[in-house]
Amino acid sequence: MPESPARPLGVALIGYAFMGRAHSQAWRTVGAAFDVPPIARRVIVGRDEQAVAEAARRLDWEEHATDWREAITRDDVDIVDICTPGFLHAEIAITALEAGKHVLCEKPLANDPAEAERMVEAARAARERGQVAALGHTYRRVPALAHARDLVAAGRLGQIRQIRASYLQDWLVDAEAGMTWRLREETAGSGALGDIGSHAIDQIQYVTGQQVTAVRGRLATMVPERPGPDGPEPVTVDDAAWATLELDGGAIASVEASRMATGAKNELSVEVYGTKGALRFDLERLDELWFLDATAPVAEQGFTRVLVTEPEHPYLEGWWPQGHILGWENAFTNQARDLLRAVRDRDPAAYSPDFEDGLTLQRILDAVIASHRADGATVRL
Amino acid sequence: MPESPARPLGVALIGYAFMGRAHSQAWRTVGAAFDVPPIARRVIVGRDEQAVAEAARRLDWEEHATDWREAITRDDVDIVDICTPGFLHAEIAITALEAGKHVLCEKPLANDPAEAERMVEAARAARERGQVAALGHTYRRVPALAHARDLVAAGRLGQIRQIRASYLQDWLVDAEAGMTWRLREETAGSGALGDIGSHAIDQIQYVTGQQVTAVRGRLATMVPERPGPDGPEPVTVDDAAWATLELDGGAIASVEASRMATGAKNELSVEVYGTKGALRFDLERLDELWFLDATAPVAEQGFTRVLVTEPEHPYLEGWWPQGHILGWENAFTNQARDLLRAVRDRDPAAYSPDFEDGLTLQRILDAVIASHRADGATVRL
Amino acid sequence: MPESPARPLGVALIGYAFMGRAHSQAWRTVGAAFDVPPIARRVIVGRDEQAVAEAARRLDWEEHATDWREAITRDDVDIVDICTPGFLHAEIAITALEAGKHVLCEKPLANDPAEAERMVEAARAARERGQVAALGHTYRRVPALAHARDLVAAGRLGQIRQIRASYLQDWLVDAEAGMTWRLREETAGSGALGDIGSHAIDQIQYVTGQQVTAVRGRLATMVPERPGPDGPEPVTVDDAAWATLELDGGAIASVEASRMATGAKNELSVEVYGTKGALRFDLERLDELWFLDATAPVAEQGFTRVLVTEPEHPYLEGWWPQGHILGWENAFTNQARDLLRAVRDRDPAAYSPDFEDGLTLQRILDAVIASHRADGATVRL
Amino acid sequence: MPESPARPLGVALIGYAFMGRAHSQAWRTVGAAFDVPPIARRVIVGRDEQAVAEAARRLDWEEHATDWREAITRDDVDIVDICTPGFLHAEIAITALEAGKHVLCEKPLANDPAEAERMVEAARAARERGQVAALGHTYRRVPALAHARDLVAAGRLGQIRQIRASYLQDWLVDAEAGMTWRLREETAGSGALGDIGSHAIDQIQYVTGQQVTAVRGRLATMVPERPGPDGPEPVTVDDAAWATLELDGGAIASVEASRMATGAKNELSVEVYGTKGALRFDLERLDELWFLDATAPVAEQGFTRVLVTEPEHPYLEGWWPQGHILGWENAFTNQARDLLRAVRDRDPAAYSPDFEDGLTLQRILDAVIASHRADGATVRL
Repeated sequence: MPESPARPLGVALIGYAFMGRAHSQAWRTVGAAFDVPPIARRVIVGRDEQAVAEAARRLDWEEHATDWREAITRDDVDIVDICTPGFLHAEIAITALEAGKHVLCEKPLANDPAEAERMVEAARAARERGQVAALGHTYRRVPALAHARDLVAAGRLGQIRQIRASYLQDWLVDAEAGMTWRLREETAGSGALGDIGSHAIDQIQYVTGQQVTAVRGRLATMVPERPGPDGPEPVTVDDAAWATLELDGGAIASVEASRMATGAKNELSVEVYGTKGALRFDLERLDELWFLDATAPVAEQGFTRVLVTEPEHPYLEGWWPQGHILGWENAFTNQARDLLRAVRDRDPAAYSPDFEDGLTLQRILDAVIASHRADGATVRL
Repeated sequence: MPESPARPLGVALIGYAFMGRAHSQAWRTVGAAFDVPPIARRVIVGRDEQAVAEAARRLDWEEHATDWREAITRDDVDIVDICTPGFLHAEIAITALEAGKHVLCEKPLANDPAEAERMVEAARAARERGQVAALGHTYRRVPALAHARDLVAAGRLGQIRQIRASYLQDWLVDAEAGMTWRLREETAGSGALGDIGSHAIDQIQYVTGQQVTAVRGRLATMVPERPGPDGPEPVTVDDAAWATLELDGGAIASVEASRMATGAKNELSVEVYGTKGALRFDLERLDELWFLDATAPVAEQGFTRVLVTEPEHPYLEGWWPQGHILGWENAFTNQARDLLRAVRDRDPAAYSPDFEDGLTLQRILDAVIASHRADGATVRL
Repeated sequence: MPESPARPLGVALIGYAFMGRAHSQAWRTVGAAFDVPPIARRVIVGRDEQAVAEAARRLDWEEHATDWREAITRDDVDIVDICTPGFLHAEIAITALEAGKHVLCEKPLANDPAEAERMVEAARAARERGQVAALGHTYRRVPALAHARDLVAAGRLGQIRQIRASYLQDWLVDAEAGMTWRLREETAGSGALGDIGSHAIDQIQYVTGQQVTAVRGRLATMVPERPGPDGPEPVTVDDAAWATLELDGGAIASVEASRMATGAKNELSVEVYGTKGALRFDLERLDELWFLDATAPVAEQGFTRVLVTEPEHPYLEGWWPQGHILGWENAFTNQARDLLRAVRDRDPAAYSPDFEDGLTLQRILDAVIASHRADGATVRL
Repeated sequence: MPESPARPLGVALIGYAFMGRAHSQAWRTVGAAFDVPPIARRVIVGRDEQAVAEAARRLDWEEHATDWREAITRDDVDIVDICTPGFLHAEIAITALEAGKHVLCEKPLANDPAEAERMVEAARAARERGQVAALGHTYRRVPALAHARDLVAAGRLGQIRQIRASYLQDWLVDAEAGMTWRLREETAGSGALGDIGSHAIDQIQYVTGQQVTAVRGRLATMVPERPGPDGPEPVTVDDAAWATLELDGGAIASVEASRMATGAKNELSVEVYGTKGALRFDLERLDELWFLDATAPVAEQGFTRVLVTEPEHPYLEGWWPQGHILGWENAFTNQARDLLRAVRDRDPAAYSPDFEDGLTLQRILDAVIASHRADGATVRL
C-alpha cells in the first residue's frame, strides 16, 4: 500500500533535460495547486553524475543517482516518471511496473512497435494489481483542450464532420543548423510527424472521442543534408508531414506538421466542425477556446473567445482568479494531479492516455509513413 | 411634388474632393443595391471649372457647374448634397432648404454655433413642408454599428454603465508635415476633436440611445508649429483630445481622439458595457461586431466575433452573400438608401441624424473645449 | 480600332445573377477610381426578358437583351463579359473572340476539358490580333494578395518551401438544405473542389509564381443525399476536398476546401513559408496581409499586420485614404482596371490569368479527382 | 552578513491568501528557473493558526507561525515578504527593516501617506546598510512589458507623445454582489483606482521612463450600495476611474480603470505612441508585445506580434523553448530573481520599484482623487 497516509508518495524522475525540468516543476507545484496526496521528490536520475547532482539541487530533489535500476526499486519510491529519450522507455517502464511501481512515461511510448507491445503487456498486468501506467500527452491537460472535449462530449457540436489539426514550428528553417539525433531515423523514428504531428493526432482523437480507422500520408524532407562534425550528413527523417485521417464516427481530419513553418513558434492548432457548432484552438494562445454555437440566432453567431480561466473550467480550481492566464507549464501540474488521484484511488482507468493509447497512436504514425511509402495509398488500422 | 414617379429624383452635389468622391460612389451605387426611387446625378458643383468638369466626367455626373446657387435651384434638382468645407455649409443648406430642396449635409453641421442655429431653424421650417434635412454621420450606416444599436435597443446589454470610444489616426506624427487649413482654428474650428472625436461622440449617443448631459475635456497640441510657405506657423487646433461624458441614462463615457497615434490608421473604436452584455467595434475591421452575452453560461462566455454580413443584419439585403465583406465606402450607399426612402415617403423623421442632432453634437464639442479652457471643470449642456 | 478616343469602349455583360451584379458594380465604378479608357455599359443579356429588363434598370445598363449572339456582335460592343453558368462559357467566349471582341470570362473557364481546349485555341488566335481573353480569378486583384505576390517576387520570403491554403465555408452544414445544380456532377463538374478549392490553388500558383507539377487528392461527400422536389436525391459532388501539391520551385502545398466548416463564412486562407520570411492572409479580413521578416532581429520578429490601404500598395491609388478599408467588391473594380488597360494598350500579355491559366488550373482540379479515384496516388501534370 | 554562502537565504512570508499563494509559487520556483542564491522557505505567518498550518503544508513552507514579530526577527530569516492587507504594511515593513532584514512588500505601499512616508524613511536608512526594500509591482516583470521598456529605452519609439493605459475587470457587474472590505474607503483607500488603476499608472511610468507631473481625474461609483449582513450598505470607493496625466518628458497619458467592464476579465492594456514607433500590450495575452516600427518601409509597416518567448527576451533564460508561453504567475518568479540578485550583491539600487516609487505612485493616486473632488481641476505633483 504505497499511498498509505503514513508517508508521502515517493517519486523518482529519470531524466533531467527539457522534459525533466518541466516534470520537476509539476511535482514541485501540484500539492500547492490541488488536493492530492502528499508526495516526496525522492530522487532524480541521470547518466552524468555531476550534471544530475546539479539538476537535483536546482530542481529540488532530495537525492540524485546515476543507476536508474537501483533508484526505481527503492522502497520509498512509488511513482517512476520517465523523461528519457524514447529508446529507453520500454526497459525502464517494464522494470518499474514489474517492481510494483506506478509509471508516468513521456511520449512517444517507444520508438519501436515491438517494444511498445511489450510495454502494453506489462501495463495490463500491472493494472490488475492497481498500478497506473500513464502516458504523458500533456496537452490533454491544457484546460482549453479539456474544455473542448467536454463541449463535444456534451453534444454542443452535434455530429463531428471535419477536423483540421496542425502543429507548426520553425526551428529547422536554417539549412545550416547542424545534424542532431532528432534528424536521424534510427534514433528519432520519424521527424516532425512523430515529434509534433503525434500531438495533433492525439488531440483529434482526444477532443472528438473518435478513433482513427484509416490514413493517407505524405512526408517531405526539405533540407536533405545538414552539417555534421565530419561534413554533410543526410537527414533521414521528415521535416514536414501531411495526412488525412478517417475516424470511426464518420469524420475526416487533416493533419499537417512542420518544422519549416517560418514564424510559427509552437502553433498546435485544432479546429473541429460539427453539425451544431465548432471549436478552434491555438497553443500559442492556450488560455483561449473559440467556440461557435450554430444553434444561436444567426445575427449573433460567431466564434466566441472563451478565456478558459473561470472556476467552472477544467483544472481551474487549482489556479488563479479569472483572467490570470496560465502558461504552457501548468498543464504538467494538471497532469500530475490526475496521476496522483488515480494512484490514490488505485483506479488506473481514471487516467488517460494509457500505454494502449500510446501504442494505437504509434500505429497511426506508422500507417502515415507506410502510406507515404505506398505513394499515398490508404492504410487501414 | 419633386419625387413624382414620372421622373427620377435629381441630385446636385456641391464639392468634389474626398467626400465628393465618396458621395458620388454612393449615388452611383444605391439603385443597384437597394429598392429606392430612381435618381439622376444631375450636376456636380465646384469652384474650379476645369477640375469640376474632370470630376463630372470621372464621377459620372450629367453636368458640372461652378455656381452652386444656380445649380441648387434648378427645377430638375430635388436633393442637394453638400460636401464642401464646413464654413460653407450654412449658406448652401439654408438656401437649398428655402428653395424647397431636400438636403444632405456632411458633418460637421457648421463651424460656428450661430450658423448652426440658423440651419436648424431652416430645417425645422422645411420639415413642416416634408423636406428632409439630413446630416451625414455616415458611420451610423456601418452595418456593425447599426447592429450594435439594435442590440442595445433590444435590451441585450441591459443597463449601459460605461462606454469607451476612441478615434486614433497617425497622419500628423511627422512634425515636418506642413500647415494646412485643418490646423488653423479659424478655418477648422478644432482639430482631432471636431474632425474625428465628433464621430466617437456621435457613436456614443447613437449606439446607446443616451444623450450627453455634461463633459470634462482636455486638448493638447503636440507639435506646436509646422512649416508654412513663409516659415514656421503656429498650430492653433488640438492634435489630440480627451473627454469624459455623463449621459442621461446614467452611463459615463470616455473619449480619446488623436492624429498622433503612430500606427493607427483609422481606428474608431467603440466599447459599450452593460449589466447584461457588452459590445466592441473597430473601424479598421468594420464588418465585425464583438458581442458578449453576460447571461450565457459562464463556461461558454466571451466576446463573439459576429461577421455582420448576414441577410439578418442591417443593410445587408443590398449586398453580397455571407462572408463577402463590405468596405468603408458601402456605408455611404447605405446612407443614400435611408435618405432616398425618407424623401420618397416625405417622412423627415425617418432619417437621423438631423440638423438638431448636429447642433447638439456641436455643443458637446464646444463644451469639451470650454472645459479644457476651464482647467477641466465640468461643463453642463 | 475599338478603343478609339472618339467613342467609349462598349461592354456587353452576359448574365445578371450574383456575378453579374458584382461585375456591374465594377463597370460602374472603374472610371471613377482609375485612369482607364471611358466605357459604356451597352447591354446586359439574360434569358428571362422581364428579369433582365429589371436588371438593366437596377444595374444601370443602357439596354437589355435576351439573345447573346446578337448582343456580342454589335458594333458598339468591344468587350464581352461572361458571367453565365460554366457550361455556356465556351460557346459565348469563342463566338465573341471570333467576332473580334475582347473577352472577360468568369471562372471556371469551362466544365469540360475539351471545351476548355477549344477556348484556349480561340484565345491564342485572338491574341495574335491584339484581343484580350481574360479569366476572372478576381482574388488576384485583392490588394493584399497582389502585395503578397510582390513581396515574394521581390525575394522578401527567400525560397518558398511550404504553402497552406484553405477555403472554408459553411452553407451546406444543414443536411436538410435542398438539392441544387451545384450539387450534381453533370452541371457543376465538382463541388467544393472546383468552386472554392480552385481559388485556393490559383492563389498558391499566383502568390508564389510556381506551377503545380503533381498532386494527391481526397474528396468526401458528407451529406450523401438531400431533399429534391421528388424526394431525396444523391449528392454527386464533393462537400469537402483535400490535396497536397508539388510545385516546380520545390515547394509543397496543402489545400483544403469545404462547405461544411461550421462558422466559416468565406475563409480563403493562404500561408506561405520561405527561407527568409512568411505571409498569412484571410479573405474575411481581406485588407490585412500578415508578413514576417525572418531577417529582422529575433527580439522584434513576428507577423506584422500590414493594413493594405496605403498609396504604396497595389490598386490603392484608386481608392480612399489610409485605413479606410476596402471590401470584397473592390477587387472586381481592380480587375476591370487591369482589363481596360490591357485593351487600351492592345497588350493581351499585360493581363493574367488568361485562358491557358484556366486550362492549367482545370487540369490540376481534374488531377485531384483522378488521384482521389486512384486511392490517393500521385497524379503528375 | 545574512547571505553568507554557508547557508541559504531564509524567507518569511506574511500572509497566505491570493498574494501569499502567488509569492509562494515564486519562492518554490525561482531556484529552478534562475541562477540565484539558494533560499529556504522558513516560515509562513497568518493570524489563523489552523489555516496558516494548512497553508504551510500546501505551499511547502518549513514552519508556520501566528506572530509576525517573532517570525521576522528570527536569525535564520533574511528576507521578509509582506502579502498582508495594505493597512499592515507599514508596521511590518518598518519592523523588518529595523531588524536588518530585506523586505519585499506587495503593492500598495500603504493605505495612508503618513505611513508611506515613514516606510520610505526606514527604507532609506536600511539602504545605507545594504538592505533591499522592494515593492511588488509584479507586472514590471512580465517579459513583454520589460521588453517594451527596453525598446523605449533603446530609442526605438523615438520621443513618446501619447500613452493609453487601461485596466478593465468585471467582477462587480452584478449589483447584488455583496459588500466587502474592498468597497469601503476606510479599509481599501480607493476602489478600482488604487487596486488596478495603480498598475496602469505604474506601467505608464515604467515603460516610458517618464514621471507624472500633473493629473486630472474623475471617479464614479456605479452601484452606490450593496447588500451587507445587516442590509444595504453604501459603497464608498470608486467602481471606475478616469485620469489624464502629464509626464515630465512631455507626453500625455490617459488612464481608465473599471470593475464594471462586462466581459473584461483582467485586461491591463498599455499603448505607447512615439515619433518613431509604437507599442501595444494586453495582460490577457501577456506573452505578446505588439511593436510598430514607423521607420520601416510604409508598404511593410504595421503592428508586429512579437511572441516574447525567445532567449533574447528579458527573463526568458529561465524558462522554456520559444513558443512555450508563460502565464501570469511566472512574473512573480521573475520578481524573486531580481530581488535575490539585489540581495546577493547587496545592491539595493538594482531592484525597482523601491518604496519611494511606491510613495510617488500613492501621491499620484491621491492627486487623481483630489482632482475628482475639485471637479476635475489639474493637481500638480
